Amino acid sequence: MTKEKYTAEVLQYIPVFYIIWSDDLLSASEINVVENVISEDTSLTKSDKKKLLSWLDVKNPPKNELFKFWKQLILNSGVKLVEQETHPLTVFSQKVASYYHNNVTFNDQIKEIEINLGIQPNHYNHLFEVHIDVDNNSVQYSGKLIDEILKGKQAKVVDRFRNVLKDPIFSWEIYRDKEKFRNHVLEQVSFLAKKGYGAMAYSKAYGGTDDMEGYAAIFENLMYVDGSLAIKFGVQFGLFGGSIQKLGTKKHHDKYLTDAGTAELLGCFAMTETGHGSNVRGIKTTATYNHNTGTLVIDTPGDNDNKEYIGNALHSTIASVFAQLIVNGKNEGVHAILVPLRNENHELLSGIKVEDNGYKLGLNGVDNGKIWFKQVTVPKENLLNKYGTILANGDYYSEIKNPNKRFFTMLGTLVGGRICVARAGLGGAKFALTIAIKHALKRRQFNDSVKIQEDLLMDYPLHQLRLTPLLASAYVYHITLDKMMRLYCDETQPDKRQIETQVAGLKSIITWYANDTIQECREACGGKGYLLENRIADLKGDVDIFTTFEGDNNVLLQLAAKGVLSDFKAEFNSAGFSSVLKLLSTQLSDKLSTINPLYSNKTDKAHLYNQKFHVHAFEHRTRRLTYTIAMRIRGYIKKGIPSYQAFLKVQTHLMTLGKAYSTELAYKSFIEHNNTIGDPQHKALFEKLGTLYALHEIRKDASWYLEQGYIGSTKSKAIRQRVERLCTELRPHLASLVDGFGIPDYLLSAPIAN
Amino acid sequence: MTKEKYTAEVLQYIPVFYIIWSDDLLSASEINVVENVISEDTSLTKSDKKKLLSWLDVKNPPKNELFKFWKQLILNSGVKLVEQETHPLTVFSQKVASYYHNNVTFNDQIKEIEINLGIQPNHYNHLFEVHIDVDNNSVQYSGKLIDEILKGKQAKVVDRFRNVLKDPIFSWEIYRDKEKFRNHVLEQVSFLAKKGYGAMAYSKAYGGTDDMEGYAAIFENLMYVDGSLAIKFGVQFGLFGGSIQKLGTKKHHDKYLTDAGTAELLGCFAMTETGHGSNVRGIKTTATYNHNTGTLVIDTPGDNDNKEYIGNALHSTIASVFAQLIVNGKNEGVHAILVPLRNENHELLSGIKVEDNGYKLGLNGVDNGKIWFKQVTVPKENLLNKYGTILANGDYYSEIKNPNKRFFTMLGTLVGGRICVARAGLGGAKFALTIAIKHALKRRQFNDSVKIQEDLLMDYPLHQLRLTPLLASAYVYHITLDKMMRLYCDETQPDKRQIETQVAGLKSIITWYANDTIQECREACGGKGYLLENRIADLKGDVDIFTTFEGDNNVLLQLAAKGVLSDFKAEFNSAGFSSVLKLLSTQLSDKLSTINPLYSNKTDKAHLYNQKFHVHAFEHRTRRLTYTIAMRIRGYIKKGIPSYQAFLKVQTHLMTLGKAYSTELAYKSFIEHNNTIGDPQHKALFEKLGTLYALHEIRKDASWYLEQGYIGSTKSKAIRQRVERLCTELRPHLASLVDGFGIPDYLLSAPIAN
Repeated sequence: MTKEKYTAEVLQYIPVFYIIWSDDLLSASEINVVENVISEDTSLTKSDKKKLLSWLDVKNPPKNELFKFWKQLILNSGVKLVEQETHPLTVFSQKVASYYHNNVTFNDQIKEIEINLGIQPNHYNHLFEVHIDVDNNSVQYSGKLIDEILKGKQAKVVDRFRNVLKDPIFSWEIYRDKEKFRNHVLEQVSFLAKKGYGAMAYSKAYGGTDDMEGYAAIFENLMYVDGSLAIKFGVQFGLFGGSIQKLGTKKHHDKYLTDAGTAELLGCFAMTETGHGSNVRGIKTTATYNHNTGTLVIDTPGDNDNKEYIGNALHSTIASVFAQLIVNGKNEGVHAILVPLRNENHELLSGIKVEDNGYKLGLNGVDNGKIWFKQVTVPKENLLNKYGTILANGDYYSEIKNPNKRFFTMLGTLVGGRICVARAGLGGAKFALTIAIKHALKRRQFNDSVKIQEDLLMDYPLHQLRLTPLLASAYVYHITLDKMMRLYCDETQPDKRQIETQVAGLKSIITWYANDTIQECREACGGKGYLLENRIADLKGDVDIFTTFEGDNNVLLQLAAKGVLSDFKAEFNSAGFSSVLKLLSTQLSDKLSTINPLYSNKTDKAHLYNQKFHVHAFEHRTRRLTYTIAMRIRGYIKKGIPSYQAFLKVQTHLMTLGKAYSTELAYKSFIEHNNTIGDPQHKALFEKLGTLYALHEIRKDASWYLEQGYIGSTKSKAIRQRVERLCTELRPHLASLVDGFGIPDYLLSAPIAN
Repeated sequence: MTKEKYTAEVLQYIPVFYIIWSDDLLSASEINVVENVISEDTSLTKSDKKKLLSWLDVKNPPKNELFKFWKQLILNSGVKLVEQETHPLTVFSQKVASYYHNNVTFNDQIKEIEINLGIQPNHYNHLFEVHIDVDNNSVQYSGKLIDEILKGKQAKVVDRFRNVLKDPIFSWEIYRDKEKFRNHVLEQVSFLAKKGYGAMAYSKAYGGTDDMEGYAAIFENLMYVDGSLAIKFGVQFGLFGGSIQKLGTKKHHDKYLTDAGTAELLGCFAMTETGHGSNVRGIKTTATYNHNTGTLVIDTPGDNDNKEYIGNALHSTIASVFAQLIVNGKNEGVHAILVPLRNENHELLSGIKVEDNGYKLGLNGVDNGKIWFKQVTVPKENLLNKYGTILANGDYYSEIKNPNKRFFTMLGTLVGGRICVARAGLGGAKFALTIAIKHALKRRQFNDSVKIQEDLLMDYPLHQLRLTPLLASAYVYHITLDKMMRLYCDETQPDKRQIETQVAGLKSIITWYANDTIQECREACGGKGYLLENRIADLKGDVDIFTTFEGDNNVLLQLAAKGVLSDFKAEFNSAGFSSVLKLLSTQLSDKLSTINPLYSNKTDKAHLYNQKFHVHAFEHRTRRLTYTIAMRIRGYIKKGIPSYQAFLKVQTHLMTLGKAYSTELAYKSFIEHNNTIGDPQHKALFEKLGTLYALHEIRKDASWYLEQGYIGSTKSKAIRQRVERLCTELRPHLASLVDGFGIPDYLLSAPIAN
């Protein structure tokens, strides 16, 4: 069969030599690497070495005949190349030699050539007429198992729901006309409602399963169908239905909730006003009680006081209207009232005006509109009166005496919606990452030679650095939001104040993260990412507004930061504020240990990969920022500046604190969850994702850590290098990691992802 | 007229007292501030002081009658409040007193109250029944004059062009259907072509004015009409016409250029291929010469080798096709050939297939498509043969012997297009900034009291910090791109290599900047920014792809970085590379002076605002990064790693260098231009914009500067504070600064900007 018999040891070098000589020019430095390896290979005999070295003479390269013979040797072995191996070429060589000889071992010297010449599978897999084995079982993680970990106890609900999404009604199509698009989305919403998904978070009496956690999980999956569907669904069942469920009492539940859940009764959530945006407490719509008739009169006083961006406004029969409730001439603050908008023929009722918001950057399948009320009368029973009611004698009554507290209690019902918005953003990010990474695992661009194949996009260090930390963050945020919803639904925790603060911050950082990720994915897919058919473009338009609605991120982050400060129970507008701040500063300064210079320049891998270091860094940052803000505010107040002005002066500082606190929270939630992962291999993978997240975040704020002396120059550089290194380490697992998001093939319609 | 005569000195305090008492509660700390001021006011007599102090008793506040009397005093004076003053309240008080007395001077003590209580015009302008003087002539800069500075010597061309854009054909409308949109944009393009704007950059013989610089200036203005118009215009006249002009010879000019300029002949620029994207040299389309027939055969060999994203593909009659030119069986590299696509009835010619790219994230008014060629024959005269031709004897001939150099010479003709893309991106950013800032100068949100007006968005420190540095950058980049186009058009500079490198880097940082800016503006306008009618949404979709087309930013930045390295004439793939690197390192390390600790912690304003500091920082960064990259590559090559692999390993490092170099270049171009501004006041304003740009950029890279020890902690913090401070300093001039962009009112259709 062979013209010449090679020893097993020589045979192992044949694939390497074959690759080297296929690449026309062997440079002096390359020869040098190979020569050194051969001379240090103790498995080779003197004559083996002589033979191998003879094939390294540039002036007298192997003859064509010999070259073809090598190819035949490789071909005859029938060995398949496994690209996913850590050292694919060395393993491949070992297998080829094993076909002809027994007991061939892995040769570390060949590994040296593979590493030092930077030979990657994409440089040579086209050279062999051998089948490329892309069997994911070799050294890979299981996408399926990862998906199970992410689904957690929602696995059944999610699997069943994903199955429902197989229906052709959910297959992706381009709708440019908003009316057609809105009608299609409405059909999808009704379809899901009929299957019981609308009522999911309501109690059994109203068609539901009391499963808010499951609702959040399926909500994220709606993003894989279409952003408009997710938002329309959320408006109908979460906001409109949710307002009845959470702000209403039994009479409202009995009358409306079942129909809301089946989408028989379409409704909207009319809170925001044109002129007042994020300032919900300052809305101007009034609901004035008339005791003679037992009715409430809803009125839009000024030109800019109309309701705005109200989702479902054009399809709705009824609205939950937020208005200043005026009883006996006294303003009792913002309350929600059910106001019918249209009759059974879908004609607007008297006194009601609705205007279409028109085309938007995205979400054109959602019918947003403006609503005006001109002295519209409804029975007083329409007041959603869980937290405040009008008594039979015509007086107002609430168990929550403090109007401030009452307002925030009512708004607290929005927290679930905020978690869902963050999850939807996360779903968009996962979807975009899946498309971009699958594309980058197929698409090739450039190389150093026209002779060999172009490089896989995903093998570029820059591409790895662009996408991998974003992928890791998706894992961290998934676990975090799951936990938040669990806490929010936990009835044993009656004081939801802290969760509200935490959700405010997380919603902000996660929806911003989602937008950045989708943008990076768009650019990473080049021109292909710009085409609607590849789905990223729509995600970009749809997810964009998530940073603004259900609470503007800038406003929410300041809320989160104030929450951190008020963990100390300070009432910021009260006279006692100054003394509370004083106490706060003392407490915090005690906790802020001075950083040991040895610690701030510790750069070994064990330390940098240690969760304790990450947690310490995040906690240090949050505490230090809290302390410095407290000190600044205290300084202003001492100088006689009113606290509102003082807070204005530290606004950018508050934003920084809000972000820092949210990042710390997310990371801690993630590592806490890692301890619940049974399989040690997958647990290690998750820990690696966490480490990448943590180091990447610390890296982003490196200027602050450096300013504080928390890390020194050397450590800062080491962290940067570790981030790049971790991206490379995760490179072989990217396919499994995007499969782990569990996005069904039938929803992944993007041609570039297939 | 008065019940009581006040002295001039007391009278000056009246408006202040009036404001204070209108705000129900005067806190202890507030009283304290006012008391201190009064007691230290040397202009007051003892009895004056006694009187003023008597009005500060919370337990015995001024009677309603007195309060009304004060109001009358102010009203009778007829003085107008000028919000734009640096200390509007103190000036207002001075003017009121001047109505009743002579020689009233500015009272620094009242200024103290104004500052320390943080009293801003929006807190009190509603209290006075006086007309608010928003006359921009007071202490303001002139938007018109700023516009003149930006237009520079293109003023006439730009003014005339803006006037042309008054035609109703350019008024903004929503087009959802791509066919209708494309036809409308085509009409707009033809309209401009008929007025001579298409041919502008061509020579007079072909209907033009040889004015590439003017072309770039008007091109930016097209963005104020619509992104699709700008791109379609650029494809037809810049890319298609430009390829004939720059790669063709007289016979091509005579035959095609006039018709291209008038849009009588519609053409496309068919370079990019599906499978090869940014790797233009690796395109697979072939143009094979047949000497027997004197023809070239154009062919698309494989499934993925079709032309892709070709703008104007559906409207074109002809295409400039880039293909591997094969003559006598030898591949002579990429050349452009004119290939007719359709006949006079707009039917595709035999062998040609065109497919619509369909809907995109933006630019849906541009007809992008894919094109396949199946053995399409054209006469050899269709070869655009300026840099390579086929002789009568059938041999190939080029004056540029090196195929590499020939390729880059041909591609060099794209540089003008890259400048234009960056300018279009900049135009998009300016448009978005104008809308967002005009909105923020009208829109109010929140305050500490329901009694007084909500705060103007633009008065929030956070809002200032979000938008002002972006505004400053627009000025810097405008001047930079103007200069680049001037250099590019300067025929006295025959070697355009350096300009190409510089444009590659600038195109990247500026189109990224444009996207970030548009995004920030979208979010800054909240839900309003999401509506198409407010124009930012379209800008977002349109400008997005600028980061990818005419050279992917990531690829271009690496090109720019390699350009910096090769200023030393290194040939990176040659054997001599290593020694060149050695030389390079030596040269650079000499230049890298050690930073004096005094310097790295200098925080005084004079130093931080000094251009010398900014230039030094930018130069230090570029040099240091160049040096460390060179050292890294050298290390790899010593270890035997091939240079292609070595460059791959420093890919992220190259990106950093590319950005640093481009930032340095932009800033230097800007300050150089500032010296040409005649009016000292406006020159100072431009210098302030430059300082904000420089400090903001240094701040963004603070972690690097800190790591290097170039700046210390104190300086780093001081820079951050200065950035915030500069934003506040520029606050009163924002209206003039956006007017300075010169966007005509008739194009600024966004309702929120009006």
